[in-house]
Amino acid sequence: MAHVVVEWTDNLEGQADIHGLLALIAATMREGEMFPWGGIRVRALKLTDYVVADGRADDAFVHITVTMGTGRAVEAKQRFFGDLFDRVKRHFAHLYETRYLALSLYVEEADEQVSFKHNNIHARFRSTP
Amino acid sequence: MAHVVVEWTDNLEGQADIHGLLALIAATMREGEMFPWGGIRVRALKLTDYVVADGRADDAFVHITVTMGTGRAVEAKQRFFGDLFDRVKRHFAHLYETRYLALSLYVEEADEQVSFKHNNIHARFRSTP
Amino acid sequence: MAHVVVEWTDNLEGQADIHGLLALIAATMREGEMFPWGGIRVRALKLTDYVVADGRADDAFVHITVTMGTGRAVEAKQRFFGDLFDRVKRHFAHLYETRYLALSLYVEEADEQVSFKHNNIHARFRSTP
Repeated sequence: MAHVVVEWTDNLEGQADIHGLLALIAATMREGEMFPWGGIRVRALKLTDYVVADGRADDAFVHITVTMGTGRAVEAKQRFFGDLFDRVKRHFAHLYETRYLALSLYVEEADEQVSFKHNNIHARFRSTP
Repeated sequence: MAHVVVEWTDNLEGQADIHGLLALIAATMREGEMFPWGGIRVRALKLTDYVVADGRADDAFVHITVTMGTGRAVEAKQRFFGDLFDRVKRHFAHLYETRYLALSLYVEEADEQVSFKHNNIHARFRSTP
Repeated sequence: MAHVVVEWTDNLEGQADIHGLLALIAATMREGEMFPWGGIRVRALKLTDYVVADGRADDAFVHITVTMGTGRAVEAKQRFFGDLFDRVKRHFAHLYETRYLALSLYVEEADEQVSFKHNNIHARFRSTP
């Protein structure tokens, strides 16, 4: 299981490639052994109403929340998501130099004692980790 | 308190009855003793930008997140939500047989030490558990 | 870090000042010492599909979720967010007297062991707490 939500402020419209960011995140998750491909679900939520910091309309943010299963070592998560966040920063490097922008990434674990799944996408990747 | 968020990919539009799913979830929560009726709040978020698995546009998902108060036994939650998830699977059974689809349900507990409520809907159900 | 999400049902459209609520929340967070200004990010999600309680279309809700860093005393959080919630109740006082409405506020802590930030807004507030 791996759910990723990318919230982004619509004052980035036309400046940032958000779908490219989703594809970048999914591609990074397909590398390595941490995430079975069939469980990768990355989506964007475009924000149209927000107040950032002291309320300037040109303050932008992109906030990424990952929810994953339990049981991975903290160090492994720090390494994987630190690398992912470096890629996210590179994706936005030009914008970050030219406007106010806050990028962030949080990782949460789901309570797998009370979680349920039914997924026929996994079958496409039987031989994938 | 019982908050339910149903995220669904818009490639299910016209194929899946999402409002019917919300009604099914709320009705299931009104059964039994676990949830006071006045606190049931089920909503859908329609996703229009997403990347699933290896990025095929016809991969769909419906992801349900429940946030509830603390203090219920894990077994009671497993029983209640296992039954709910069975109903969710039946709701999507035809679609599941005919297209790529991932269904999932997670249950989280809110930190009730720092939560606040003000709700005049409860008054309609004074005699309800 | 301080992320606030305000979900609101669209049956409040034209009756409730939601952007004013976001501004009120951000202003309250700028008071005191708890939140560095540059990290305040408050946004609204307008809900267009929902089932509340027993499914009456005129049941409305506004649900606020705060995600913040770890390490604050429970008492400090109860005091700060209790005060914030009092302001939220005052913001909706007239509506609350005249229609069905559920207000709620939850506070969660992010796992800062696996969180990443890159934010050039902070620089505007170097001398702010």
